[in-house]
Amino acid sequence: MAEFRKDPITGRWVIIAAERAQRPRQLGAGKIPAQEEPCPFCAGNEALTPPEVWASRAPDSQANQSGWRVRVVPNKYPALETGGPWQGEYDNFYQSQPGLGVHEVIVECPDHVTNMAELADDQVTAILRAYGERLGALSRDPRWRYLLIYKNQGDRAGATFEHLHSQLVALPSVPREALDEIAGAKAHFAASGRCIYCEIIDRELVDGQRVIFAHDKFIALCPFAPRFAYETWILPKAHGAVFEECSEHEISECARALREIIGRLNRALDNPPFNYFIHSLPTQDSAPESYHWHIEILPQLFRAAGFELGSGSNINGVAPEAAAKLLRDALL
Amino acid sequence: MAEFRKDPITGRWVIIAAERAQRPRQLGAGKIPAQEEPCPFCAGNEALTPPEVWASRAPDSQANQSGWRVRVVPNKYPALETGGPWQGEYDNFYQSQPGLGVHEVIVECPDHVTNMAELADDQVTAILRAYGERLGALSRDPRWRYLLIYKNQGDRAGATFEHLHSQLVALPSVPREALDEIAGAKAHFAASGRCIYCEIIDRELVDGQRVIFAHDKFIALCPFAPRFAYETWILPKAHGAVFEECSEHEISECARALREIIGRLNRALDNPPFNYFIHSLPTQDSAPESYHWHIEILPQLFRAAGFELGSGSNINGVAPEAAAKLLRDALL
Repeated sequence: MAEFRKDPITGRWVIIAAERAQRPRQLGAGKIPAQEEPCPFCAGNEALTPPEVWASRAPDSQANQSGWRVRVVPNKYPALETGGPWQGEYDNFYQSQPGLGVHEVIVECPDHVTNMAELADDQVTAILRAYGERLGALSRDPRWRYLLIYKNQGDRAGATFEHLHSQLVALPSVPREALDEIAGAKAHFAASGRCIYCEIIDRELVDGQRVIFAHDKFIALCPFAPRFAYETWILPKAHGAVFEECSEHEISECARALREIIGRLNRALDNPPFNYFIHSLPTQDSAPESYHWHIEILPQLFRAAGFELGSGSNINGVAPEAAAKLLRDALL
Repeated sequence: MAEFRKDPITGRWVIIAAERAQRPRQLGAGKIPAQEEPCPFCAGNEALTPPEVWASRAPDSQANQSGWRVRVVPNKYPALETGGPWQGEYDNFYQSQPGLGVHEVIVECPDHVTNMAELADDQVTAILRAYGERLGALSRDPRWRYLLIYKNQGDRAGATFEHLHSQLVALPSVPREALDEIAGAKAHFAASGRCIYCEIIDRELVDGQRVIFAHDKFIALCPFAPRFAYETWILPKAHGAVFEECSEHEISECARALREIIGRLNRALDNPPFNYFIHSLPTQDSAPESYHWHIEILPQLFRAAGFELGSGSNINGVAPEAAAKLLRDALL
């Protein structure tokens, strides 16, 4: 089974998941095979995945048969597993813990669509609703301290299958990126009495040069200090820390914003590979006043390389002001 | 000119270097053009680079002519620049600083060789000596707080040119990865009175399962909690914090170890793309007893994707014990 291991120098945790090397795309292999047939995510091929854990289905359809709109299944090659002991191994120097967690795949449509911009707004709404359902269910399990939804779009962004899908991981502890954001947000709140994300939204709306669009409920912007060229964040304009507490109307407005951003990236940058993830409050954090959920969309146009790995800083060759202008001006 | 910008939430600095997008390989372009002719790094084409800042040359040769063995030139598309004002901009929320620094290219051989394992040991020694010369010279400039040598080998590891080269960046502050290592090493030293890297070497030599080889002066191992499949570290067995304080004998022994590891990676993994970097003591750090310079070699076989970006943790599909065994068993 997988394990968490802690680097004794930096304290950084990694997941060692040796079974993952068995995945369809092996070490060093090239592109996603375009004709991986039959596609396990297409309607009709439900038997090729593990049994579903949730689905949005027609009332007369049966589990693990066709008739679904969005389908959630366990990852066949999970990085983490739910069963197993809870005790870690410690020799006072090297520390490890069993790789406990949940790793699910959200299959985003029954047909073999490969670009999210080709879906209708109401299908993207159904996907975000599926995210909310799974986040809500897993947040009630006291074993999980952090839930992360993420998407890899395109081979160069790490996708193994081209049929649209995203993934959900439940972790027994809060990971470093979330800790950094939450610590910064709490410090800002303690100093100013304000949510720092709310303050960013206010400042960006006044300044304007990094805003891509501002709908009634959501804003899309290129952040002041982006790690990646054309990095874009989508944030709810009204303060809210927990994604799955969104109203139905907010979910559909978020879907509209997400689909618009992907359409603008596709148009401006010729269907770039990208990753996105949702950052929401950790399940057992009781300070929702200082945190603000959001989606970060990170195009993968350049590879992070030796400088980034050796320093932990990123070099970004596109200023966010120029990126926002290009995405604002993209014809839809 | 480039600028450092600080994310107001996490405090993370990035380098916004808009001029970098002018590089030969543009946004989203594919492989390194195999026939980028004439290659600016080949002997005879010295006029195609900025004038050299250092070279290992035959006594009768002239600067910026052929007759060199290793040649160091300014990066034509630098992420950071040496000139310019030192004052940052602060509006009490968004902070930025001029992108001051040094960005050099170490051209590693006069012929058009594309894999370091094809060089002789004495050429690799000449390369490491060049690293030491430049690190030594730049460390005497009080503006630079951190010096990073790194290499990108292969398109999938971020290389823009295939002719063997590495890069050097001088930074006006110590970056996050180095801060994390140094803080951890200092804490361990304070608690135990020992350098944590020396302790790792001792433990690994006793345990043996993560050791690839142990020469007289250097050890190569897969660390206990590696971020990447087949991640390998080379460390001097004797304590030393500063790379450029190595003796001539140590430099040649380090070159032998580095070339052997790259040969083993090539043999076991079919010439994988990789990054390496040297972590050495920050120029103005006065605690060399707790830090230990080393080289980290990171093969790039899988792409870091949404999980890694959203969590800051890595999933590694190959246990370091299995990686070390494969590399130990590789025939040279």
